[in-house]
Amino acid sequence: MPTDTHHSKEPERAHPGRVTVSVDAMGSDKGPATVVEGIAKSIRKNPDLAILLHGRADELRPLISKHGIEDAVTLHDAEDIVTMDQKPSHVMRHGKGTSMWSCIDSVRAGDAQVAVSCGNTGALMAVSMVRLRKLEGVNRPAIACLWPSRNPSGFNVMLDVGADIRADEDDLLQFALMGASYARNGMGLARPRIGLLNVGTEEHKGRAELKVAHDLIAHNAPKADFEFVGFVEGGDIPSDRVDVIVTDGFTGNVALKTGEGTAQLIRDLMREAFNHSILSKFAAVLALGSLKRLQKRIDPRRANGGVFLGLNGTVIKSHGSADATGVSAAVKLAYELGLSNFNERLAARVASAEGFDGAGDGERTAS
Amino acid sequence: MPTDTHHSKEPERAHPGRVTVSVDAMGSDKGPATVVEGIAKSIRKNPDLAILLHGRADELRPLISKHGIEDAVTLHDAEDIVTMDQKPSHVMRHGKGTSMWSCIDSVRAGDAQVAVSCGNTGALMAVSMVRLRKLEGVNRPAIACLWPSRNPSGFNVMLDVGADIRADEDDLLQFALMGASYARNGMGLARPRIGLLNVGTEEHKGRAELKVAHDLIAHNAPKADFEFVGFVEGGDIPSDRVDVIVTDGFTGNVALKTGEGTAQLIRDLMREAFNHSILSKFAAVLALGSLKRLQKRIDPRRANGGVFLGLNGTVIKSHGSADATGVSAAVKLAYELGLSNFNERLAARVASAEGFDGAGDGERTAS
Repeated sequence: MPTDTHHSKEPERAHPGRVTVSVDAMGSDKGPATVVEGIAKSIRKNPDLAILLHGRADELRPLISKHGIEDAVTLHDAEDIVTMDQKPSHVMRHGKGTSMWSCIDSVRAGDAQVAVSCGNTGALMAVSMVRLRKLEGVNRPAIACLWPSRNPSGFNVMLDVGADIRADEDDLLQFALMGASYARNGMGLARPRIGLLNVGTEEHKGRAELKVAHDLIAHNAPKADFEFVGFVEGGDIPSDRVDVIVTDGFTGNVALKTGEGTAQLIRDLMREAFNHSILSKFAAVLALGSLKRLQKRIDPRRANGGVFLGLNGTVIKSHGSADATGVSAAVKLAYELGLSNFNERLAARVASAEGFDGAGDGERTAS
Repeated sequence: MPTDTHHSKEPERAHPGRVTVSVDAMGSDKGPATVVEGIAKSIRKNPDLAILLHGRADELRPLISKHGIEDAVTLHDAEDIVTMDQKPSHVMRHGKGTSMWSCIDSVRAGDAQVAVSCGNTGALMAVSMVRLRKLEGVNRPAIACLWPSRNPSGFNVMLDVGADIRADEDDLLQFALMGASYARNGMGLARPRIGLLNVGTEEHKGRAELKVAHDLIAHNAPKADFEFVGFVEGGDIPSDRVDVIVTDGFTGNVALKTGEGTAQLIRDLMREAFNHSILSKFAAVLALGSLKRLQKRIDPRRANGGVFLGLNGTVIKSHGSADATGVSAAVKLAYELGLSNFNERLAARVASAEGFDGAGDGERTAS
């Protein structure tokens, strides 16, 4: 990414490959033991990873000892826990003593490059907004998710999948810029292909704000160094036509959950089908390797981690029900984003966005 | 459906079980031979089915003879064909000589109860709107599709999946009433469960018009004899929590295509997995029965047919790429809807919709 280098304000680090990830130990449905097991997996694979772990120190200390990861982990004691049913507004007012708040504050203070939490999405977004604040030039932050696809990496990126329920044309342009930056730094794609989700791919179709967004994104594509493939449809989300799908948070959230629900239905029906008779059970045993390969390919744990984009700091939301493998995948993504100085690069991209002449950003040119 | 009977203006029929379906022979990607093969399948299974077949008589006559279905089929010669790339506006102006136009006109004239076409969706909706006109009280017609689900029938209904790109609260109420009527008459569900698609199921969540629609639908549920389960999420679309999912045509179209794309990706990956080695290929042979059962369960051909609701006549859009089995499924659905006097029942339901006091329909009460 040579074109971005001069924007980066790289923090000083003792060890150039070293990344510190701030982890909320208490948000998981499966309890802190699963979170600690997940970070232990990541630490064993990666000696350059340091963890700031937030939660009840008395509970966490024995878990850390059990895995022998004391050297890589620094404990931050936090007594309170954000529960799954707490409203974001409540957590914003009374959440100061929670592990989630403490986890985000480590990124705010610059002690960690990226934060990871399995907690309540609404509360995590609210605390992140309050403590990290929106990036200059960003109107609506977005949540980006990875989606199993036919691409060589096995995944596409989609955003927004639920940070907000609407997005106008300027927001959609920002999503395109942020998504391109994420695909470049998180997935290693030099020139990501961006598509704008619509019904039908013809330019005259769809909602009015989508037509304006189409032209705005096309206008910004050359300088922002991504390829704009134009409108894409729901069927393209798992395809290899596109790397990043841009949409508003309402549509993105419905699409994400529809895709997950459909995949789950097929998995269950497949299990039923193979349990149908002695012969089919025998076939399932023979096909075990194939079925496991398939399962791995569509395993949501491999793509664990919605990423909050557009704040002064990167926050990864891991599934509340993620197991140790899922937590480890989220921590790995955090490491990679931290290593690439992702948030500084993203900020530079957003700052370079151009409106049309006279509109929005006016005469502003690239920095 | 005893409560509806007094609304029905049942046309006189020589034979009480007899239904005439109007079929556009020319719209299919696979050509008229596939369409005629499909209707032949349906006719062989159902002696009470009569077909009005629209298209090039010279091409169709030998196909009809080949299947020996001359007695059940009446040919309507139409020289022109609506192609997949023709714009709806073009077809509306110049489409009078097409098989699609002729097919819809048979329903308009009362010669057939339901129309079936594999043609271009946009053009079919445009011609249907112009020739059949909107039902009194309907602001936006909708397209309803069947969706593989965990319900005993194997399917849920979702609407709108793409007739229009937006829907306000009154439209969403009409979709609920039309969807309930469709589930009752097309799927035999006495008291269908209706859900309104949103992000999150809490009542305070989502877009403002959805909250109003929520209350409007809840208000109408007792009299319209459906159960309102409130907000549902994308993950509920294939579930057994709900029978009918109500949403705007933009969101519905994205969800439909996302689900189809996801299912197709998994089917392809499954094929790859079983082609991986000699052992997995052998396992696939043993598991053939199970895999076929699974395939059948998620086979889009079984659910072939988007239904246009809210017009003075029912129109079924079959997939352009449907094979004979798919065409036959669409014709079967047409037969069932014709048999139940679906469109008269639906009209009665829509006419009985109630706004809140003073709002919209004001003091109007049930007929």
